[in-house]
Amino acid sequence: MTVLDNGIALERIEDGVLRGRTVPEWANMVGPFGGITAAVLVRAIELQSDVHGQPVALTANYLAPIVDGPFEISARAVRTNRTNQHWYVELSQDREVKTTATAVFGPRRDTWGDTELVRPSAPAPEDVPAGGAGPTWMSNYDMRYVTGGIPGETDGESDSSETLLWLRDNPARPWDFASLAAACDVFYPRVFRRLGRMLPAGTISFTVYFHADTETLAAQGTGHVLARARAQQFSAGHFDQSAQLWATDGALLATSHQIVYFKG
Amino acid sequence: MTVLDNGIALERIEDGVLRGRTVPEWANMVGPFGGITAAVLVRAIELQSDVHGQPVALTANYLAPIVDGPFEISARAVRTNRTNQHWYVELSQDREVKTTATAVFGPRRDTWGDTELVRPSAPAPEDVPAGGAGPTWMSNYDMRYVTGGIPGETDGESDSSETLLWLRDNPARPWDFASLAAACDVFYPRVFRRLGRMLPAGTISFTVYFHADTETLAAQGTGHVLARARAQQFSAGHFDQSAQLWATDGALLATSHQIVYFKG
Repeated sequence: MTVLDNGIALERIEDGVLRGRTVPEWANMVGPFGGITAAVLVRAIELQSDVHGQPVALTANYLAPIVDGPFEISARAVRTNRTNQHWYVELSQDREVKTTATAVFGPRRDTWGDTELVRPSAPAPEDVPAGGAGPTWMSNYDMRYVTGGIPGETDGESDSSETLLWLRDNPARPWDFASLAAACDVFYPRVFRRLGRMLPAGTISFTVYFHADTETLAAQGTGHVLARARAQQFSAGHFDQSAQLWATDGALLATSHQIVYFKG
Repeated sequence: MTVLDNGIALERIEDGVLRGRTVPEWANMVGPFGGITAAVLVRAIELQSDVHGQPVALTANYLAPIVDGPFEISARAVRTNRTNQHWYVELSQDREVKTTATAVFGPRRDTWGDTELVRPSAPAPEDVPAGGAGPTWMSNYDMRYVTGGIPGETDGESDSSETLLWLRDNPARPWDFASLAAACDVFYPRVFRRLGRMLPAGTISFTVYFHADTETLAAQGTGHVLARARAQQFSAGHFDQSAQLWATDGALLATSHQIVYFKG
């Protein structure tokens, strides 16, 4: 059991109802890291007896901070089709909803395929130094910034919000859909990079499209993934972020998007 | 009342429950155009007495085709915070859920802002010819393809899934959040462009991030918006699509993402 396994551990209460608890190692500035919450929502669906296929899409909405302690997840298959299955999920504490999510699962089929997006070039992970300190949860990742590391006091403003890093779980752990979902949220808020300083910011809504299937993820083992994120627009207290996670061998494993609240 | 207004017309049954009906002019290959469904979900929330602020994010999930006739929408504010409000919405016909959505609304605040994404260059809309024929709903838009028009029989395969077009409602109608949501879904499936032919395809999950506020949209009047979409990866029966909608004067009004099922 790694720290990621602890973070997504769930006890089944009855069909569609599960119980989990926060783990101190996943603490963020306020409440737990949003990625571990997304991961536990994926795992909650995977544990349902009527689950159909593998994750295709997840949208998690962060309504209120999760406080330290137990939480309950309800997961309901709203509709099951031959080619996909649609879920609605709520995470609550003391009957107060803290996170909602919709998810699409489905079987994978052999079709024509192509990766149109070009994978960024980067030196091998072993040639990139490990990133610096951050909130508690960051210790659960081996993060090696190629560009756009956490801004230091002397970095100042930047014209680009882009970050490119190599990433794997720490301790190393074979990739699965839950850990892939969490990894899509490892990027510190893009507004920090643009303004060269920290300010209050938090993800409101977070979407992951899972391009990899079980076999592709298994082939990735515990290797580093190449993760890239940038913002498109900052305005009126929000910015959006788009991210891509690439396998060491070049396959695009997941694409992800989020909209983030910021103050300042 | 334009055809778009007809498509999003709703009758209030009680708090959180509304009734609408499909409009023949919005017909797609199967069921209505996904964009008009997204628009009516936005409108359903806007009509709630306890709505707080303007749309920030919407994720609509297409569970099953909507058939011709009436539908019912339930909209529930799961949580209202000072800075935002989270909604869960279902569209049903005969008690069968056809569409689910989560949405975030919130007040806009004055903050630092910047558009990091570069707006594509394009000739003025009046210098671009109107696009060709398509499914019924396409007549409800004035669409002028700069690049990546609907592939004809002689176009063949393409290395790029990108489409860039000028777009406005037909008849012309002042932009609002509902019409902006619909407009984010006007791109014919990217797999048609790559393979140079039509094949069965349908959006599964569709996300819009609204960057514009009411004033920015009002300033846009009935003008054309510049709309760009491309896919990132096609694999195992799915592809993703990212899109941006720009005002004539260059403001980024909305960014959008979707995951699409295809057969072939």
